[in-house]
Amino acid sequence: MDEFNIAPVGYVWSDITDRVQAPRQGRDTSAAARIEILPQYSDAMDGIEQWGKLQVICWMHLADRDTLAVHPRRDVSAPLTGVFATRSPARPNPIAVYTVDLLSVERNVLTVKGIDAVDGTPVLDIKPHVHRLDD
Amino acid sequence: MDEFNIAPVGYVWSDITDRVQAPRQGRDTSAAARIEILPQYSDAMDGIEQWGKLQVICWMHLADRDTLAVHPRRDVSAPLTGVFATRSPARPNPIAVYTVDLLSVERNVLTVKGIDAVDGTPVLDIKPHVHRLDD
Repeated sequence: MDEFNIAPVGYVWSDITDRVQAPRQGRDTSAAARIEILPQYSDAMDGIEQWGKLQVICWMHLADRDTLAVHPRRDVSAPLTGVFATRSPARPNPIAVYTVDLLSVERNVLTVKGIDAVDGTPVLDIKPHVHRLDD
Repeated sequence: MDEFNIAPVGYVWSDITDRVQAPRQGRDTSAAARIEILPQYSDAMDGIEQWGKLQVICWMHLADRDTLAVHPRRDVSAPLTGVFATRSPARPNPIAVYTVDLLSVERNVLTVKGIDAVDGTPVLDIKPHVHRLDD
């Protein structure tokens, strides 16, 4: 069985301190959040300021990894649906992909809009959002 | 230092057997690929057939994880750019996010269009593509 070790390249710092407080999806929140890139990865940020939209890939460290089906949007009247057919954070590998607006870059800190991750969420990767590929 | 263990939920089966043969990005290829979900995760697929577009999150197992800067599009005349500002597969956590068209679902196999992953690439997660959130 394959298995991979993943270490974060940074962390999200936001005003959201628990999951209950978190909006359902990133685009519903209007607050800005900061992404701090760890010093050993700062060279990987060179040129990032040229992009207006980024994909931020996070590890939802508080999510339940054993749940395979959920009621979408936590609506118990909705039929149980496999997590691969929902955007629930509960899933075997709780990876979130946020499309965010890049507001500013200062040293190893990005300020972005459009992410609802809890304060302290690990960041696994950052990429430019490319319209032709992602929309 | 945080570290996470990730095991694949499935694999990509495609006609692309090496990286040289692989198109630069998923949307450039027109061939269909199959995604086989491992039996222990098949319940997580329930309802997936209702979606036309999916996000498929892969682990690019052949990618170099030590490279922090590249020449974009392998063009040596382009300035070295941090990997977080490019879509290069080389990056500390080589995670690829493909937006694909779902063509069919048969048991634990999805047939999709728009993925250029090498045959045998591990799949980490699958989500519906939601226009409001992802575009």
